[in-house]
Amino acid sequence: MYKLIEVKSGVCSAEGFFADGVSAGLKNGGAKDMAFIYSKEPCEIASVFTTNKMAAAPIKHFKAKGAFKTNFVLINSKNANAMTGSAGVEDINEILDTLPECALNPVMSSTGVIGVRIPKEKIIAGAKLFNLSQKEPHAAAEAIMTTDSFSKEKAFRVDLADGSSFHIGAMAKGAGMINPAMATMLCFITTDAKVSKDEMQAILSKTTITTFNAASVDGDTSTNDTVMLLSNAQSGAYDAAAFEEALHKIMKFLAREMVRDGEGATKLVTYNVTGAKDDKEAEIVAKALSNSLLVKTALYGEDPNWGRIASTVGASGAEAYEEKLTISFDDLCVYKQGKLFFDEAMEAKAAEVMKKDTFTISCDLGIADGSFEAYGCDLGHRYVEINADYRT
Amino acid sequence: MYKLIEVKSGVCSAEGFFADGVSAGLKNGGAKDMAFIYSKEPCEIASVFTTNKMAAAPIKHFKAKGAFKTNFVLINSKNANAMTGSAGVEDINEILDTLPECALNPVMSSTGVIGVRIPKEKIIAGAKLFNLSQKEPHAAAEAIMTTDSFSKEKAFRVDLADGSSFHIGAMAKGAGMINPAMATMLCFITTDAKVSKDEMQAILSKTTITTFNAASVDGDTSTNDTVMLLSNAQSGAYDAAAFEEALHKIMKFLAREMVRDGEGATKLVTYNVTGAKDDKEAEIVAKALSNSLLVKTALYGEDPNWGRIASTVGASGAEAYEEKLTISFDDLCVYKQGKLFFDEAMEAKAAEVMKKDTFTISCDLGIADGSFEAYGCDLGHRYVEINADYRT
Repeated sequence: MYKLIEVKSGVCSAEGFFADGVSAGLKNGGAKDMAFIYSKEPCEIASVFTTNKMAAAPIKHFKAKGAFKTNFVLINSKNANAMTGSAGVEDINEILDTLPECALNPVMSSTGVIGVRIPKEKIIAGAKLFNLSQKEPHAAAEAIMTTDSFSKEKAFRVDLADGSSFHIGAMAKGAGMINPAMATMLCFITTDAKVSKDEMQAILSKTTITTFNAASVDGDTSTNDTVMLLSNAQSGAYDAAAFEEALHKIMKFLAREMVRDGEGATKLVTYNVTGAKDDKEAEIVAKALSNSLLVKTALYGEDPNWGRIASTVGASGAEAYEEKLTISFDDLCVYKQGKLFFDEAMEAKAAEVMKKDTFTISCDLGIADGSFEAYGCDLGHRYVEINADYRT
Repeated sequence: MYKLIEVKSGVCSAEGFFADGVSAGLKNGGAKDMAFIYSKEPCEIASVFTTNKMAAAPIKHFKAKGAFKTNFVLINSKNANAMTGSAGVEDINEILDTLPECALNPVMSSTGVIGVRIPKEKIIAGAKLFNLSQKEPHAAAEAIMTTDSFSKEKAFRVDLADGSSFHIGAMAKGAGMINPAMATMLCFITTDAKVSKDEMQAILSKTTITTFNAASVDGDTSTNDTVMLLSNAQSGAYDAAAFEEALHKIMKFLAREMVRDGEGATKLVTYNVTGAKDDKEAEIVAKALSNSLLVKTALYGEDPNWGRIASTVGASGAEAYEEKLTISFDDLCVYKQGKLFFDEAMEAKAAEVMKKDTFTISCDLGIADGSFEAYGCDLGHRYVEINADYRT
């Protein structure tokens, strides 16, 4: 048996990790816009990157290195270094060459405007402000924010039955996947667990599917999306089940917080799809619901319009039948297997559910055992305002 | 050789077709809400229906009949007769049984609210108001409108080289594919061309791909989408190339008008994708662009944000490369094959293009010869207003 105890030091929870955020003048008004994560001991790396074919320069730079260990991640906001071609990768090399010698195989991660060369001189000057003996995880989490309205961190100490323990902690930014011109999804996780690179990668890849890949603000995949997990093994402790559970809890929390903080979002809705032909079909339905403009605007209007849910299920492409489908808002069943019973009294009850800021829409397809849970938000006027005017 | 001459009598352009619209009290204020199309001669039918698994009762009723000829289509707005199970199909049979004896194998088409039984008595009473000797195509086109702000008709007389001629004319409603709770895409086409059922179906299916299926307001597919083509062969004339060209012109015009009339839409944008691996991949990219929330809100904000275009191309799943991609707004190239040259002067020029109410965004993927053209609109505050508040 093991126990997860929440701790509050984000990416500095794990032994031997340092982090901080500074202002390099990329954001206005002296806001923090650059962060580092540093470990004296070199780290094994597991990673998941965007599937966008226009992957940004930092991702190309990382992938070109092949297998390697690192102890230093440099992160900047305000400029994505995307669509910048080979020059963008050269800029990264030039920047990383200026880091102190203790930075072993340093890597970079960026978020911000697409299609503009990164302000190299500012970044180089900003990196000189780093104090590598600082443990300021909240400052780092703040520095990677773009349009986020709050910073996002989560960490656990994991106590194992033999008395040993390890830590795992993370910071993330999101507020979107809604705006590749400025936002993107970044998550950095550090651990002192003694986990092998292969096992860590397998657990990270699997966990991403049901957490970050299940969360959608607007269905877009940015050029810079990155999840990076670094292990320096310094605790010497490890338990696979405990590690997986802690990682899942952290990533699910951060994924849901990102959706809650989606631009213009006022509601966090869980789409719980069951009874599908298989898990893949359940995922198709859950994501169709979380991305449907019609569903998202109905959420914003707090309109318990189950017809839009049914139509979106039908349009998703997954196997579905009118006479097998059941739809519920939280525990309130509004449509069941071909039976129409949605009267005014029930509409009033359903409208009460829709007024909550967090609730669940369940669709049981009634076919087999496939299931998937996705997280989405509503779409209202603030989304239009933020996105229509973004660059100006 | 042949000539297409535009005529103005919609679905009554073809010889022997009658149509009208009446008010059955489904809409408020005595607005027309029921229409018929009637031909004394029985007609061959070609059709394309929604791929939504929750297809509405009229579509189930139609498909259950197998192969048949008809001379009568009954259409109502305000109630979709969708998610109404077998009772919904029985309602249709009861309604159609009350039509005059001259109605041979009559069919029905509906659009409106999902999940509510159709008001059978009102529909039956409404049908008794029909005068089958009327040729009032505009009244019929008006009656099938839901949230449309204008009715949509197009018709041609086709003069063939041998002196013979035939007609083809249509009416459509859309204003959406944006609201399965109320809107849907319906199109009825009549012709007196002497065309075989099989040939007519083949041409209709092919033409739908590049017209109605290339048009998107919000990417949703309603439970009731229907394109129906009736031929009574009364002209005795036919030419395959002329028929196909006329049908394509009519359907493309109506598809674009639907997008232009999309709820809250202020712009009609053509996405012209070329250079893709194949036509299918070009279609994937063009539809990803026309459905992207980020692109749609940038259009609304008249923001020439080519980074969002590039990112959406990259996220579409189609093969694409940063160094092969070229993006243009009308004739203004804003990004070319890895070269960054989008300065302030160019941004001002691009912003001018974005101010137009109709323009083209072109993406040349630079890989091979695949191409596709899709039609989309912007997404602004009116869309949110209409959709958030729709049922209330």
